[in-house]
Amino acid sequence: MNILTLTEELSTENKKSTARAITIVESDPSRSEELLKLIHKKNGRAYRIGITGPPGAGKSTVTNQLAKNYRSKNLSVGIIAVDPTSPYTGGALLGDRVRMSDIGRDPKIFIRSMATRGSLGGLSTKAIDAADVLDAAGYDIIIIETVGVGQSELEIVQAADTTIVILVPESGDAVQAMKAGLMEIADFFVVNKSDRPGADQAMNALRTILMMRNHDEKSWMPNIIKAVATEDKGIIEIANEIERHKDYLIANELFSSNRKMKLNRRVKEIVENKLIEQLWNHSNINLSQILLENNFSENNSPYNLADNILHKFIAHLNQRK
Amino acid sequence: MNILTLTEELSTENKKSTARAITIVESDPSRSEELLKLIHKKNGRAYRIGITGPPGAGKSTVTNQLAKNYRSKNLSVGIIAVDPTSPYTGGALLGDRVRMSDIGRDPKIFIRSMATRGSLGGLSTKAIDAADVLDAAGYDIIIIETVGVGQSELEIVQAADTTIVILVPESGDAVQAMKAGLMEIADFFVVNKSDRPGADQAMNALRTILMMRNHDEKSWMPNIIKAVATEDKGIIEIANEIERHKDYLIANELFSSNRKMKLNRRVKEIVENKLIEQLWNHSNINLSQILLENNFSENNSPYNLADNILHKFIAHLNQRK
Repeated sequence: MNILTLTEELSTENKKSTARAITIVESDPSRSEELLKLIHKKNGRAYRIGITGPPGAGKSTVTNQLAKNYRSKNLSVGIIAVDPTSPYTGGALLGDRVRMSDIGRDPKIFIRSMATRGSLGGLSTKAIDAADVLDAAGYDIIIIETVGVGQSELEIVQAADTTIVILVPESGDAVQAMKAGLMEIADFFVVNKSDRPGADQAMNALRTILMMRNHDEKSWMPNIIKAVATEDKGIIEIANEIERHKDYLIANELFSSNRKMKLNRRVKEIVENKLIEQLWNHSNINLSQILLENNFSENNSPYNLADNILHKFIAHLNQRK
Repeated sequence: MNILTLTEELSTENKKSTARAITIVESDPSRSEELLKLIHKKNGRAYRIGITGPPGAGKSTVTNQLAKNYRSKNLSVGIIAVDPTSPYTGGALLGDRVRMSDIGRDPKIFIRSMATRGSLGGLSTKAIDAADVLDAAGYDIIIIETVGVGQSELEIVQAADTTIVILVPESGDAVQAMKAGLMEIADFFVVNKSDRPGADQAMNALRTILMMRNHDEKSWMPNIIKAVATEDKGIIEIANEIERHKDYLIANELFSSNRKMKLNRRVKEIVENKLIEQLWNHSNINLSQILLENNFSENNSPYNLADNILHKFIAHLNQRK
């Protein structure tokens, strides 16, 4: 199908076109960029929410219930669920996704699961590209959900306007969240499964860590919300907190400046990806060949080999002039 | 100090020079490369062991005990402990490191802790560079230890000749290890803290997953070793299994081909890092400026902005000719 036609067909009424456009973004690099350039002018209207946290915190359930909450307000919801997959096998581990099937039947909820498949670097770009497709299709709310275990996953949720970190009461969760870099990206926290023992201690531990970090009275202080998502407890409070954060951003003129900062980060990543792609697509540079020729000389450190390759690439760019 | 002199002073007798060389590798990019090129000819003699696993699995304790075991065989041991740090604060969370201080006093054990500080991509390069310094200094065994939570951390331990994944008996640990990509990189597993309840079930779960994955009878089948590292239980078995894996690699002519494959990966990463460094160091490319100029036109998608920057960079390289 013609890309222009496809982009014109994008709407919340047409899940098929949306799905097709995301497939292009995900797996057809030759047409993805054309599509993304075409839809750009329709972007920027949706509110983007990032949801992350350690495995087993109940991210999918919170996403599920939150989507239902937005539907009750007659808002359409697009969901990108990023599955952490082994970079080696390429096979996605499902399970969580299955639970989402009940909301998937709602005509105004679109769910797409994206798997890691090798290049984690590429995934954050692709997930954000997919969110752009949902934005262009007219979804009011976009939720990007991913497990908070790596740098790339953090990049994904940081592209959102509001980022929520979900934890469980188990001891040490707050400390591990700190280690994983989750403390700094959270606009607020949800302690899910808070009917389990230790919920209050977990809340206190989190509060203590947050107080140590936040000295400036004027800056945004992340709240902590208790929830039992499987019983729909705390979901209204989460939705309200998202609203409160959005209002704060707008009142403090941070809404567009934050988006601009995120655009900077994104453009930087795209440029880097493109340059590296050019490097390895360049036919004169055959890494294995160069290594084969040079490997046996003990004077060729990896840094000498790298210089060698880089010189070849730059010479190639010069010839193309 | 002169870099050449420093490299000549490297030895297991001289912890000060080794520490100084690693500091250069870690934080002085202008001199790091010269140093690494100079020491390259002294590299390749040490046996490299990678240790990873989820937070709290007892990686430091295993590393500690394993180092003592090697010392009892009169082998010198260099340890690189990579601390997962928030990419936002730059502050390392210590704690684990403290436990290592008793072995740190051994004159033939060198321990160095490296923190994430921002660029995770750079960290794997630097950790491997630091291992090269230890190799050149003459350490017989090099252990690189890091928490297995992200792509970058996996890259670090994969640079080793033998990679050990450490888990604890808690339910679901094996599944999470799968999700994090740890199953595929393990040459063998250690179920540490195996005096806790559930150890046998955890071993069985792991074994089942491994059996599903390994069909080829001739290929290496990762073993699972029970340990209680705090009580020194299972450490001899771990050391023996490392030896058995090394023998397997040599007998099957995989030892040098694996190292060559790892060199390929490393050179690739160095080239990419260098190219990206050139890109952003290039004075004509001011990302914020370009964005400022173009941001307000709705036709400028992130992909158009990226093209713009890439063209400027390539034009700059052409002018330099």
